[in-house]
Amino acid sequence: MLDLFKNAKKAATKLRDLSSREKNEILQAWGQDLWARREEIIEANAKDLAYGEEIALNPGLMDRLRLNEDRIQGMIDGLKVVAGLEDPIGSVDKMVENENGLRIGKMRVPIGVIAIIYEARPNVTVDCAALTFKSGNALLLRGGKEAIHSNRKLVEILRKTLEDKNLDPNFVQFVDDPTRESSKALMEAVGYVDLLIPRGSASLIRACIDQAKVPVLQTGEGNCHIYIDETADLDMALAIVENAKTQRIGVCNAMESLLVHKKIGADFLRAFKEIQVKHGIKVHGDPGTCQILDAEEATEEDWGREYLAMECSCKFVDSVDQAIDHINKYSTGHSEVIVTNSYENSQKFLQKVDSACVYVNASSRFTDGGQFGMGAEMGISTQKIHARGPVGLEELTSYKYIIYGNGQVRK
Amino acid sequence: MLDLFKNAKKAATKLRDLSSREKNEILQAWGQDLWARREEIIEANAKDLAYGEEIALNPGLMDRLRLNEDRIQGMIDGLKVVAGLEDPIGSVDKMVENENGLRIGKMRVPIGVIAIIYEARPNVTVDCAALTFKSGNALLLRGGKEAIHSNRKLVEILRKTLEDKNLDPNFVQFVDDPTRESSKALMEAVGYVDLLIPRGSASLIRACIDQAKVPVLQTGEGNCHIYIDETADLDMALAIVENAKTQRIGVCNAMESLLVHKKIGADFLRAFKEIQVKHGIKVHGDPGTCQILDAEEATEEDWGREYLAMECSCKFVDSVDQAIDHINKYSTGHSEVIVTNSYENSQKFLQKVDSACVYVNASSRFTDGGQFGMGAEMGISTQKIHARGPVGLEELTSYKYIIYGNGQVRK
Repeated sequence: MLDLFKNAKKAATKLRDLSSREKNEILQAWGQDLWARREEIIEANAKDLAYGEEIALNPGLMDRLRLNEDRIQGMIDGLKVVAGLEDPIGSVDKMVENENGLRIGKMRVPIGVIAIIYEARPNVTVDCAALTFKSGNALLLRGGKEAIHSNRKLVEILRKTLEDKNLDPNFVQFVDDPTRESSKALMEAVGYVDLLIPRGSASLIRACIDQAKVPVLQTGEGNCHIYIDETADLDMALAIVENAKTQRIGVCNAMESLLVHKKIGADFLRAFKEIQVKHGIKVHGDPGTCQILDAEEATEEDWGREYLAMECSCKFVDSVDQAIDHINKYSTGHSEVIVTNSYENSQKFLQKVDSACVYVNASSRFTDGGQFGMGAEMGISTQKIHARGPVGLEELTSYKYIIYGNGQVRK
Repeated sequence: MLDLFKNAKKAATKLRDLSSREKNEILQAWGQDLWARREEIIEANAKDLAYGEEIALNPGLMDRLRLNEDRIQGMIDGLKVVAGLEDPIGSVDKMVENENGLRIGKMRVPIGVIAIIYEARPNVTVDCAALTFKSGNALLLRGGKEAIHSNRKLVEILRKTLEDKNLDPNFVQFVDDPTRESSKALMEAVGYVDLLIPRGSASLIRACIDQAKVPVLQTGEGNCHIYIDETADLDMALAIVENAKTQRIGVCNAMESLLVHKKIGADFLRAFKEIQVKHGIKVHGDPGTCQILDAEEATEEDWGREYLAMECSCKFVDSVDQAIDHINKYSTGHSEVIVTNSYENSQKFLQKVDSACVYVNASSRFTDGGQFGMGAEMGISTQKIHARGPVGLEELTSYKYIIYGNGQVRK
């Protein structure tokens, strides 16, 4: 591992010398080479799928693991989008002159070496390589054992492209050892890893936060709420709730908890009941909502759960304030929605809800780097330090102050 | 401690409701009340000074500990500057409309609860209260035992002002227990402390990074370099070196290492020798510089040292590139200076030196929140995550995405 770390550090220094044009050419070349070698990728992926069947991986994970021509094309589309984005590196937002005549500006710079620990999705390999490379950071990829053949092949192709262009292949390195030991080594790589991003289960993320000695970016868990205000358009509310709960259930931006103003509560829930039946949604409700819906009574613990299933909690509230308090108490700080036609309540909700993404009249499913115009994402940050929400190019940068003087000394 | 933590969390929620005007009025009132009660402050400080003499605190620390009317006025001036700064909270830099018609903006919000562990300087108490209060964060102050009477009195006054204005005094809380246990409790206050800032010795900072379970902002150590390029104006270079090394020696932005291009090396060092003798600067030099200066030969370890004394390392280099490599190898990433008249070398140095503040033709002593126009500072960050360089109002904020829709759902 130490060799890998040293290579990454050396590569990070060289990456600072590449121009935007050179970086974008590599992103385009990666797309061409991935497409040219798509059969090799699908072949390697078949080995992972065979292993997945052997260990009876659940259908959701099997689906995330699977690669085909469409999905490879999807990765390549992502590369093109990232190539088209503005390069944050080297930009200086403004320079100010202080009273001594020093001109002081903040210049965007890469962070250095980024490591990611992830699980079964091989497309993460290419997304992360695109974002870290364009933002000038060296990358260490520690994928899960379920996807090892796919990841190994993808990284082999990405590195070959770099070699063909006479660049250091160590801009992207694969930790070919999907064990606890390699994760631990990354967590403790002080002086080598500048930022560690765990992307996967809650237990993986918790382990990184507890054990890492390098800075960690906390991603993920989403106990997302939708609050239906008394002034909501009920058709709009139903469409948003149906989309946020059922369009895709295993994702962090799905709705897990539904709050309804009691004034319109009975009307709304009678309409929602059709959606519940249609999709087979299991509901954990408070006593009021249990009278209308076919629901189990919710326990205290249920309000805090991220179900990741056709399941949610449901509660009547007396006011937007009560909804906000409930959310700030139980939420994981990911994405929350108010459906309302009240100007006052919409502004109050936006101001007071303390989560990464706060929506008025839209589905929480839009919390996503692609949807936010970032091309791809390293994950969704639920912490408040450094970056919050989808992590794209800009969130992978730091800055330094550059100061132009003409001989100033301090009095 | 748990009560303190809970109070802080509650206070942080209330702080979000204060307008800029209300916050600025408090900052002004703090200034008035501190001045009105200056005798009490000086009296409390006398107890700390007596204890300092008893335990034979070194003269530098005794000086940092001492309060008098001038220094109290200095704190009050800082409060006024912070009151006059733009309030970052609630600002949205820009909103973009995505292809679905969602309008997406990034709004600045407070981080929540900030804790600071610091040592002997009581003015830090007031500086930190001003910055965290204005940026909407609740503050937990854990000062050193050397300053306990001064800090206790200062916090008593700040809290009384809040009470007089019918505000929650827990916006500012004092951890009245200068023990390892209280520091440890802050480091482990997951769910309560959103950011921990250690400000003091290298060992304190290292302990926080190693042990904390809450996010830590690494501040401080400065092994700052000045590189004298072959094209430098030698008078300017001498003035900058003298200022950066001797104007104040116990500070993190003082020069600790001097690199000189060998082409002008002999000329420059003969002139520098006068400064060396005048101030009694002890030099750890490479073989070349030892031939000119009265110096000891430097060990490998000397290149990495932060002397915090009338002492520095000194070395000849062949080129700006060698200077940059040396700096990136041995620096702590704080502040570095090039003195040059070469456009090419100035740009190369600004681009390639990987430190928080990189100067052309000015003293490193300007790395300071006040000098950068921030009014005060919580410390100087030497990490790349979240904030780098002086930590002021903006660096004490996070952001959230606010999204305006009109019924959008994801396809």
